[in-house]
Amino acid sequence: MTPVPAGAEKNTRSVAVGTKSTAVRGFEASAVCAEIKKGRLRPDLTLIYSRTPAAVAAVFTRNRVQAAPILINRERIVRGVGRAVLANSGNANACTGLPGLKDAKRLSQKAARLLGVPEEEIFLASTGVIGRRLPLSRMMRALPDLVRTLSPEGLPAAAEAIMTTDTFPKIVHEEIGVGKKAVRITALAKGAGMIRPDMATMLCFVLTDLAVHPALLQELLRQAVDRSFHRITVDGDTSTNDMVLVLANGQAENPPLTRLGDPNSRAFSRTLDRMLLQLARLLIRDGEGATKEVTLIVQGAASEAEARTLALTVAHSPLVKTALYGQDANWGRILAALGRAGVPIDPLKVEVFFDRVQVVKNGIGTGEKEEQRAASILKKRAFTLRIRLNQGNAAARIYTCDLSLDYVRINAEYRT
Amino acid sequence: MTPVPAGAEKNTRSVAVGTKSTAVRGFEASAVCAEIKKGRLRPDLTLIYSRTPAAVAAVFTRNRVQAAPILINRERIVRGVGRAVLANSGNANACTGLPGLKDAKRLSQKAARLLGVPEEEIFLASTGVIGRRLPLSRMMRALPDLVRTLSPEGLPAAAEAIMTTDTFPKIVHEEIGVGKKAVRITALAKGAGMIRPDMATMLCFVLTDLAVHPALLQELLRQAVDRSFHRITVDGDTSTNDMVLVLANGQAENPPLTRLGDPNSRAFSRTLDRMLLQLARLLIRDGEGATKEVTLIVQGAASEAEARTLALTVAHSPLVKTALYGQDANWGRILAALGRAGVPIDPLKVEVFFDRVQVVKNGIGTGEKEEQRAASILKKRAFTLRIRLNQGNAAARIYTCDLSLDYVRINAEYRT
Repeated sequence: MTPVPAGAEKNTRSVAVGTKSTAVRGFEASAVCAEIKKGRLRPDLTLIYSRTPAAVAAVFTRNRVQAAPILINRERIVRGVGRAVLANSGNANACTGLPGLKDAKRLSQKAARLLGVPEEEIFLASTGVIGRRLPLSRMMRALPDLVRTLSPEGLPAAAEAIMTTDTFPKIVHEEIGVGKKAVRITALAKGAGMIRPDMATMLCFVLTDLAVHPALLQELLRQAVDRSFHRITVDGDTSTNDMVLVLANGQAENPPLTRLGDPNSRAFSRTLDRMLLQLARLLIRDGEGATKEVTLIVQGAASEAEARTLALTVAHSPLVKTALYGQDANWGRILAALGRAGVPIDPLKVEVFFDRVQVVKNGIGTGEKEEQRAASILKKRAFTLRIRLNQGNAAARIYTCDLSLDYVRINAEYRT
Repeated sequence: MTPVPAGAEKNTRSVAVGTKSTAVRGFEASAVCAEIKKGRLRPDLTLIYSRTPAAVAAVFTRNRVQAAPILINRERIVRGVGRAVLANSGNANACTGLPGLKDAKRLSQKAARLLGVPEEEIFLASTGVIGRRLPLSRMMRALPDLVRTLSPEGLPAAAEAIMTTDTFPKIVHEEIGVGKKAVRITALAKGAGMIRPDMATMLCFVLTDLAVHPALLQELLRQAVDRSFHRITVDGDTSTNDMVLVLANGQAENPPLTRLGDPNSRAFSRTLDRMLLQLARLLIRDGEGATKEVTLIVQGAASEAEARTLALTVAHSPLVKTALYGQDANWGRILAALGRAGVPIDPLKVEVFFDRVQVVKNGIGTGEKEEQRAASILKKRAFTLRIRLNQGNAAARIYTCDLSLDYVRINAEYRT
């Protein structure tokens, strides 16, 4: 897998792809500046195109308030065939009613005509301010340029064009063997809160030349999302525009994957899991104002569902999150959060560890010396917070970040 | 009711009782500095005493991790009789295991002996840092002074002694007629988050000379708490030490209240509701770092439970809370929070108002002019955020505050 390149540290804006190509046979992409936010002169409109029809699968936000592109994609996904993704940043086209739906359809109509493909095979994505109409004429005028500049090496530019308050683009690439054929996969995503002030949304696009049945692709994607994007939380808010979409155009000419248990399906599945998890963790690293990356593990629970509920309650506790920001091994807050999660726990069996340092045993602190050792772990950028319940054999793992002064600053700024 | 006195604005530390007496026949109170936090020279230990046995009722935290005083009080409350409350700030005596229970019992033993009352009639409350043992010897030494200085005018001092990061004491007093007798009620509370860095806990004590059966008192208290403290949220965290406790010693010599439907019971109930709601709103005003007091109303829901779930989801959304802090009428975040609450809503029927300014109609923004009008409402210290779902007749109302830079600063500070 392309490692996270050196340039991917926070606050750098360099394209995070290193020198290795992210090209996938049969795919092209381009990006232009359509000034979707007036006066902002950076790429904000991107097109990803498959030269041949591709199997398509997607997972959409579970929020009941859904943006226009989500509503349109939900109808189109059932056919299982996709040719292109048209995505913009700067405006979410959410809570815009029927006019917003019409705007989105006019864009996909024109893109389909320019590309010479059926309109139902165009998928749409928007991310940005909620409740404002798209600047349709500027976007329509930009479409011919987008189509003209399509290029196999255009995916890094696409990753940049979908950024909102992300501080670096997120893109990973892998190559695996499937039935003696080399299969390439490139996945790109943007964060950086689950939803933003102006900027709603987590978006992820996966492009691969794998040959695969759409129904199988959908199942493998569902599993991978469950193991990656559903395991991270910045602030507990869910966007109206969240979407993960895969296009698989079959140009690797591998024997098409059709069954879940097939070794080749399993190999692809493992790779997809790994790539989405890597992107998910990059989203956490780039979380709004985040200064800590925390791997939160709950073990010894009665069921996985309970373990996950407990992990999410701790991860969402503002008091735990501010303690992490303050580099304070304040385990009392962790126990208090566990206690209010609505899950039957035995407080006197709880153990808490920061990395390998145990700060709670039998529900009681292990002493000041251990707390001081934990405090030095909390000074690190990344660490593990492990909670053992000693009540069963189920576990859950999620990835989260702290709640910092910058999170409040970023989100309290007026939408301008 | 004693109005919130002028001195009760944030950042003043004057006792919030004005010049009116808060005395209730047969009750006495005192407060001393036991240096529970070493070197901190302010009252941190208080005793409230009823000269005759009083009916007692209480509501305790629903957190599964419960502090030693809560565990002890739960056993004692079943007898329905109370004589005194011994409360301290600076240390929560939570997550302290059996040693913590023993510490608490030694305190109540000694207090009982000094007062000459049965130990089971002493109730205990602690608020402060979690996971540290009480400074028992300093507290034991302070008990004789506490008993010696008991006074009918001591309740304001008790309200001050239970403060942690509260910026002003919270105490209200009322007098009502019950069967031709004057009944006095004084209620005191402390906040200021639901749980704090060092300082866990919401505590509230209600003292009255009403004659009332303990079972009826318990039911009236349960209702009043449901209508007040269960309607406020600062940060969604629930403490290990939360407690509301009423002592009613009958010295008003009214015909004892025994039935729920009785007009006198209803009159007392209304007064108790009003007083606890006033205290609850003072907790919000004094919420950690709060700059806004928001009355959040969800109307037109299919059921009250759904209305409350929606209201709490909006109130706990970090993005809504930071927008309120930023004085930004960012209704997109409100709709996104409603959408993820797990309640079936029709986004196209939603209306949103700040006070009387409508910013959303049919799920869509009403335009920039209205948003500007709303922005001026958000500049106020207190306002109403009203959400109409237009799907039914049920409603819920809660009180909350914003998420400010100071909230993060207060909670990120190390526990020293």
